[in-house]
Amino acid sequence: MILSALLTTVGINIGLCVLFFTLYSVLRKQPGNASVYAPRLVAEGKMLRSDFNLERLLPSASWVKKAWQTSEEELLSLSGLDGVVFMRIFEFSIKVFSFAMIFGIILLPINYVGNQLTMDYMDLPNKSLESFSISNVNDGSNRLWIHFSVAYIFTGFVCYLLYSEFKYISSKRIACFNSSEPKVHHFSVLVRGIPVSSGISFSESVENFFTLYYPSTYISHVIVRRTSKLQKLISDADDLSKRLLQMKSASYTQQRVGRASFLGRKVDLVDHYEKKLEDLVENVRMEQTLITGQEVPAAFVSFKSRFGAAIVLHVKQGINPTEWNTEAAPEPQDVYWPFFSASFTQRWILKYVAIAACIVLVVLFFGPVVLVQSLTHLDQLETWFPFLKGILRVTFVSQVITGYLPSLILQLFQHYVPPAMIMLSSIQGYIARSHIEKSACYKILFFTIWNVFFVNVLSGSVLYQANVFLELKNIPSVLAVAVPGQAEFFIAYVVTTGWTNTSSELFQMFSLIWSFIKRKILGRADDKLVVPSANYFSKIPKILLFGLFGITYLFLAPLILPFLLIHFCLGYIVYRNQLLTVYSPKYDSNGKFWPIVHNSTIFSLVLMHIIAIGIFGLKKMPLASGFMIPLPVMTLLFNNYCQRRFIPLFKSYPAECLIKKDRDDQSSGTMDAFYERLATAYRDPALAPIHTLGISDGRNAPLLQATEV
Amino acid sequence: MILSALLTTVGINIGLCVLFFTLYSVLRKQPGNASVYAPRLVAEGKMLRSDFNLERLLPSASWVKKAWQTSEEELLSLSGLDGVVFMRIFEFSIKVFSFAMIFGIILLPINYVGNQLTMDYMDLPNKSLESFSISNVNDGSNRLWIHFSVAYIFTGFVCYLLYSEFKYISSKRIACFNSSEPKVHHFSVLVRGIPVSSGISFSESVENFFTLYYPSTYISHVIVRRTSKLQKLISDADDLSKRLLQMKSASYTQQRVGRASFLGRKVDLVDHYEKKLEDLVENVRMEQTLITGQEVPAAFVSFKSRFGAAIVLHVKQGINPTEWNTEAAPEPQDVYWPFFSASFTQRWILKYVAIAACIVLVVLFFGPVVLVQSLTHLDQLETWFPFLKGILRVTFVSQVITGYLPSLILQLFQHYVPPAMIMLSSIQGYIARSHIEKSACYKILFFTIWNVFFVNVLSGSVLYQANVFLELKNIPSVLAVAVPGQAEFFIAYVVTTGWTNTSSELFQMFSLIWSFIKRKILGRADDKLVVPSANYFSKIPKILLFGLFGITYLFLAPLILPFLLIHFCLGYIVYRNQLLTVYSPKYDSNGKFWPIVHNSTIFSLVLMHIIAIGIFGLKKMPLASGFMIPLPVMTLLFNNYCQRRFIPLFKSYPAECLIKKDRDDQSSGTMDAFYERLATAYRDPALAPIHTLGISDGRNAPLLQATEV
Repeated sequence: MILSALLTTVGINIGLCVLFFTLYSVLRKQPGNASVYAPRLVAEGKMLRSDFNLERLLPSASWVKKAWQTSEEELLSLSGLDGVVFMRIFEFSIKVFSFAMIFGIILLPINYVGNQLTMDYMDLPNKSLESFSISNVNDGSNRLWIHFSVAYIFTGFVCYLLYSEFKYISSKRIACFNSSEPKVHHFSVLVRGIPVSSGISFSESVENFFTLYYPSTYISHVIVRRTSKLQKLISDADDLSKRLLQMKSASYTQQRVGRASFLGRKVDLVDHYEKKLEDLVENVRMEQTLITGQEVPAAFVSFKSRFGAAIVLHVKQGINPTEWNTEAAPEPQDVYWPFFSASFTQRWILKYVAIAACIVLVVLFFGPVVLVQSLTHLDQLETWFPFLKGILRVTFVSQVITGYLPSLILQLFQHYVPPAMIMLSSIQGYIARSHIEKSACYKILFFTIWNVFFVNVLSGSVLYQANVFLELKNIPSVLAVAVPGQAEFFIAYVVTTGWTNTSSELFQMFSLIWSFIKRKILGRADDKLVVPSANYFSKIPKILLFGLFGITYLFLAPLILPFLLIHFCLGYIVYRNQLLTVYSPKYDSNGKFWPIVHNSTIFSLVLMHIIAIGIFGLKKMPLASGFMIPLPVMTLLFNNYCQRRFIPLFKSYPAECLIKKDRDDQSSGTMDAFYERLATAYRDPALAPIHTLGISDGRNAPLLQATEV
Repeated sequence: MILSALLTTVGINIGLCVLFFTLYSVLRKQPGNASVYAPRLVAEGKMLRSDFNLERLLPSASWVKKAWQTSEEELLSLSGLDGVVFMRIFEFSIKVFSFAMIFGIILLPINYVGNQLTMDYMDLPNKSLESFSISNVNDGSNRLWIHFSVAYIFTGFVCYLLYSEFKYISSKRIACFNSSEPKVHHFSVLVRGIPVSSGISFSESVENFFTLYYPSTYISHVIVRRTSKLQKLISDADDLSKRLLQMKSASYTQQRVGRASFLGRKVDLVDHYEKKLEDLVENVRMEQTLITGQEVPAAFVSFKSRFGAAIVLHVKQGINPTEWNTEAAPEPQDVYWPFFSASFTQRWILKYVAIAACIVLVVLFFGPVVLVQSLTHLDQLETWFPFLKGILRVTFVSQVITGYLPSLILQLFQHYVPPAMIMLSSIQGYIARSHIEKSACYKILFFTIWNVFFVNVLSGSVLYQANVFLELKNIPSVLAVAVPGQAEFFIAYVVTTGWTNTSSELFQMFSLIWSFIKRKILGRADDKLVVPSANYFSKIPKILLFGLFGITYLFLAPLILPFLLIHFCLGYIVYRNQLLTVYSPKYDSNGKFWPIVHNSTIFSLVLMHIIAIGIFGLKKMPLASGFMIPLPVMTLLFNNYCQRRFIPLFKSYPAECLIKKDRDDQSSGTMDAFYERLATAYRDPALAPIHTLGISDGRNAPLLQATEV
């Protein structure tokens, strides 16, 4: 790609961004779009209904100011620690790449004045972007020592930042815990692998075990039951009652009479469905009474104190390590109810099945990526499809195709990855949605880095790519040849995918269109408002991917840095706004996403070092190459230290905090009411008494159980 | 090596074994040798003094009968679970290789009738051993499918055995715990990383922390102090008092007058030394009173119940994970006192330093191994030292040199490895000797397998060997070429090193000679009897190495199997005898060595599979090579399952057992006396009051503190 093509791409995308931002600033002020642009505020009753005035039609930047001014404390109270951690990824990236920009400014002219590529007969607009990269520095030039120093200084700075962020977030985690109200999941433990005893049920088994060994702290337990059949029935009844609700509404009166079945006689459909619904509800009630026998060897056990629960959680309970396994209980709304049935051995097998399936998925994705790759090499495309020759020769078309289309296609395919990974993670037997999301986040990250970075870099057959990683010794040199060559593609990727992603996140085009259709065409303005959750697991890998680009290309092609920095600044403002107005957390993992960010950054750094080792080797600087080797080793040691220093705080709370909180609670005297709540908190929603005409409330809670007893 | 050379080696070694066994059976009956052959029985007062009779001069096999008839319960009561586990390694190996022998009998003729090597013009005695190995099977022959099946069936059988052994030993661990008397280390926890608080000492810090958070279970604590200076003083005093004791004994009377220093006047040496000793003892006492201030941020904290200690052990205590770290307390006699001073960060650094030093040591050992290698290639030796040509041409000499000398030299060098590895492990900051020994055991195992197996197989430069493992893809084919070629060397190694080791273990030549010198020449018959400890950590890696040979060569060169089986049978009888009569355990890790055996066997199996993949590739059987790949994967999955299923039981005892034992104790009413003992159990021996003329009692406890208050 030449400089002018890059500028075209940048131009298009600046235009798109400005367009999206302007449209957003106008559309958000229209009351009809409140359910798209501020569902959270509407749900919280904070949305002010204003009369029509001219201001509503003028674009304004007030939302930017609002997003900017919100303090971290406000964000914490609104979006939980997960929201704060999410925003800190942007802050961290902005810090890292602002610092990197200093090096970029030093390195760009050094790269440019080299003449390894000997293309200086061209004028600047036609200059290949490669002349700004390390490839242009002469072999064996002493200037490469500047690149060498940059790698060391930058790594040191990033490690310092990583350490202080990790420290900050882990202290924040403890602070959140210390200031929290009593929460049921701190007082409970999930027990799995309850052993089969002849003559007594699992529930009695649990009762006996804990009254025997923990008589002073044990309160009660809720045994988990196999409710898959019940869930199916409830979901059917749910659908039916929704349909009935629509029919009863005024606009559907004309449809009231119709055929109940294809060949049946005409009946009053409302009566027909009401009858059917009643049957279903009766069925559900019967199933609910029958289900008592269908116990699963798992139970939520509640204790009088947090420390009491922590003891059961941390000390191994049973003589057989596959029995009486304890896990921290998730928040009740975070429990993934269909998790049961899997035994210790099954879960162990399913884990490897999921990993294998994930690898297969990653490999299968190779097809679309090859397609994308071919678009950046127009000459190849011309040989394949000769009839396109005329069109492809048009400068603008060719620039759009090489600069814009590839990343758009990649993005489209990637859209289907998060749901697939969530599905894979959910079969692994995690007990909480937040655990599933965390595991899926790792899978998506692996997928994204492999398929966007490595496959593009090592274009070639899957087998060739696998071979590269099997010959450990050759990895640096192979990467050193391949990675700088793809700098152009990744710069374009940042500008197109990165910027577009962010502005379309703000603009929410699909929600907007769907809301418009619903209101104007289907006339269902009174549908229940659904406040979306932020789905950090699918957003974090994308941010980290851009971090990877920045870190690996820092000294290879520093031209990528300004575009990245703009991307992160945009993201910072946009996502702050979205967290304040759109997304509302359903459950909080209390900052457990940060270790993913940490690990990914360490991976990026080590990858950068490996490429550096290769590059200095290629550039005939064996000394620099050799002196580079301690850097990844030190980085990994640093990572190991951080893991030992901070990870324990992300796994469980220390006894000191638990006992202090427990004593505060005991002295406050408000615990009796809480204990009552505790006893019923972990009841499967499918087993709650049902009311025939409730309203659905999210994915998990079925429609019909509108009230909890 | 040809068959007749092998037979020569076997002949020599059978002769040596018979000689050693006969000598042993006679010498053990001489009362003068009791301190060499039955120190344990003497110490326990079980040694019967018999009068002289003819029977004492006749070889007999009564000890074999005794060793054979001892039941596992007896062994458990005599040598603890570690002894039982040690003997089960032999039982396990005998089972595995008896089963392997069946395959060996099938494979030997199959290998022999092949004619890939076309050397059938030679007669049987001159037949190279290679004609019994897989190298002799024709390329692409369908007979190789028999080898293929053997790999699968054998792996399945070994995995089944591994599982049942792991299960048996972990149940034994629990059984031992359940039947044990109250032991101080079950009621105590070592706390490290006590934070510095201004104004109060570490001891007060601990007191405050545990009375605040664990008022109901905390009893007391013993703070660790920096006693290195004191230990030096005590050891000096120890030496001096030993010397004094010798002088005072009758045989030294003539030496009483001498020069105290080189130029000093003649004095009564006893008086002189007595004066000096008094000064030293005074010094020690003064130092002991001074030392109160030299606290180390570590303490042994005791609790009222085992479960109370387990809670503190398993629940993280402090907000900062580098502070208030808890570790299971070792038995008091197992504590490695010089461990202090190292902080969290220092220990973390020292761990990597030790690993790096271990790797350096392994690489440096390459020199001796190359020397050994050259001995098996006589022609090379002849070119280096032409004057040896005459001697080397003598058949017997050349056979001894190729068959016997190499392994003898290797063995000599290996003698210094265990102390070196113990030293490396001890700087890693382990708190107990048993932990150091376990860590050293892994290091020695790594060392032994690398230097005996891989270096011999991949003869070539260190760099070449490292390269082999960096190109993952080529490992199978490189090993497949190299490993079968060294079959002869390893068969000889088993016969020489293996058999000789075992019989010299029985004969204890050095102890015997030393005891003779002491009694007859130095006249120190009344020296205190020292019962040696078994040092399993240095013996287990040797046994596992032979297991590795057997498993990897099972289908390559089955001729190794009978020699191995003899080796294990000899070892079984000899070590049982030694555990009964010679060694006495000072502390018991309660079977923690078994996971090492398990992991090493899994490693051997996977190595065998990798070689098989390579071999079938070389033998033009790509299908068999491909179908071999699932086997290592399944083996590793099996290993992973075993780790999850059994390892938790080797780390800590489950709550169920702890609480039951606690309740039994509480109801027995004997705990008050035990609590008193508990309070002083973990006092540094250097701080115990000293008596001037005590007697030294092992490595750690210094001479002078003969009695404990």
